[in-house]
Amino acid sequence: MGTPKQTVAIVGIGLIGGSLARALKRRDATTHIVGVDSSAEHLALATERGFIDEAHAEIRDGVASADVVVVATPPRCVVDIAREALGAARPSAVVTDVASTKRAIVEALDDPRFVGAHPIAGTEKSGPTAALADLFDARVVIITPGPKTSRESVASVERLWKHAGARSVRMDAAHHDRVVAAISHLPHAIAYALTLAVGSLSDSAPNLFGLGAGGFQDTTRIASSNPEMWRDIFLENRDETLRALDVFLASLANLRAAIETRDAVAMERLFERTRTIRRRVLDAP
Amino acid sequence: MGTPKQTVAIVGIGLIGGSLARALKRRDATTHIVGVDSSAEHLALATERGFIDEAHAEIRDGVASADVVVVATPPRCVVDIAREALGAARPSAVVTDVASTKRAIVEALDDPRFVGAHPIAGTEKSGPTAALADLFDARVVIITPGPKTSRESVASVERLWKHAGARSVRMDAAHHDRVVAAISHLPHAIAYALTLAVGSLSDSAPNLFGLGAGGFQDTTRIASSNPEMWRDIFLENRDETLRALDVFLASLANLRAAIETRDAVAMERLFERTRTIRRRVLDAP
Repeated sequence: MGTPKQTVAIVGIGLIGGSLARALKRRDATTHIVGVDSSAEHLALATERGFIDEAHAEIRDGVASADVVVVATPPRCVVDIAREALGAARPSAVVTDVASTKRAIVEALDDPRFVGAHPIAGTEKSGPTAALADLFDARVVIITPGPKTSRESVASVERLWKHAGARSVRMDAAHHDRVVAAISHLPHAIAYALTLAVGSLSDSAPNLFGLGAGGFQDTTRIASSNPEMWRDIFLENRDETLRALDVFLASLANLRAAIETRDAVAMERLFERTRTIRRRVLDAP
Repeated sequence: MGTPKQTVAIVGIGLIGGSLARALKRRDATTHIVGVDSSAEHLALATERGFIDEAHAEIRDGVASADVVVVATPPRCVVDIAREALGAARPSAVVTDVASTKRAIVEALDDPRFVGAHPIAGTEKSGPTAALADLFDARVVIITPGPKTSRESVASVERLWKHAGARSVRMDAAHHDRVVAAISHLPHAIAYALTLAVGSLSDSAPNLFGLGAGGFQDTTRIASSNPEMWRDIFLENRDETLRALDVFLASLANLRAAIETRDAVAMERLFERTRTIRRRVLDAP
């Protein structure tokens, strides 16, 4: 008898869940993927495109045969769904998630079989039609084990993400929330505010749209991301986001003051610093 | 006798000047391109790569035979160099520029043969090695004629940019400065401040770099742009940049308040608005 193929249940077949299904199928077509979603349309699409082998509307049914359950729903539902999955799945099954905030989830799910995880990948699109088999290739997934999480559970989730193409980094959940506030939640907040500002400024400047400045389009691409998800992320990671926002506001105040007082030397100093920081970012392993 | 081939003198063979030379050569290899640059290295590179047919260190020598002179130097040198070119070139020659701010330049160069212009294109790189033949393809060039600029001069510069692949839009110089403050100078100021902020935040969050969040990388790409050029742009377009910054700060204060007070409804409203604005941007002609 050969090694039994692995069964992965993915709850929420959207951009992330759908991409994970595709990435795992790409690596090993015998991996059995169970899709669980409250949207019959999502399930039908994912089945039709071959992302999933089995479709269920109910969590209880979908997780019954799973070795690993991945909760890829909107962040606010993760705790309830993960609890239900921990109760319904086999005792050997591991439950993990993909939410962008981790501290509250890891605290609420203090179980040896739960492993908090966050793949640092995404696009501004949503739903299974946006799913990409290579979304996680060479990307980082942050694994945030809780105090009770078993070593075996962590190893199982790290293996899953390795198969999906990603590289795991372990981190304390609270530290994770601080880090993503800086590299993800802050840039998103800024992209939203910049888009709103340009919307206002366009009232007194016709011809503003259609000029297609690369600067504006790049900086605001992420402002097309899923509004409900970002509302939840900001609510969940409120304190770290506010802290990062205030550091940003202080930096912008410095630059604003240099522009207002026509302080060329201060500007040069600030811009040279940004070049150094960017190089550190791009050179980082 | 056939139509004599056009001679274009480009003063400053950097990213923009070099790309223009390549774009014009691509369209018609018989266009005679004269490169003028204070850097012997830039001239040697541009000659070696076939971007230019003739190289000069002195403006006077370079513009003598030109039909069109394009001043593609750092913004602060444009007025002096354009004046010199207007004096040294043939009476039929037209002089134009590519600077990112226009009001002050157009006011200072109130001449029938001077045409202010600004191609909305660029990369974060500098110098002739960064020059791209397709940099202006399908991009907009804003043409800002002054009160005295002749119709023929405008037509000549519009033709030049059409040959380089760009589409011309005419605009009042002051209106130009307001528009680019919103779509270009504001996003650059924000990218600089965000990069500085993430640099500070990384002090209390090791592991922050190397996680490679697409959000951060996209939003800060432009913060690697030429520091001297951006110092000059902010100095030159100070008032419109400050005005745009203050509109942005008000938008960000709204979002910050919604996060701080956990106002989910206000956040959803703001995010839906950004989606509408983004769609207007992307749908714009």
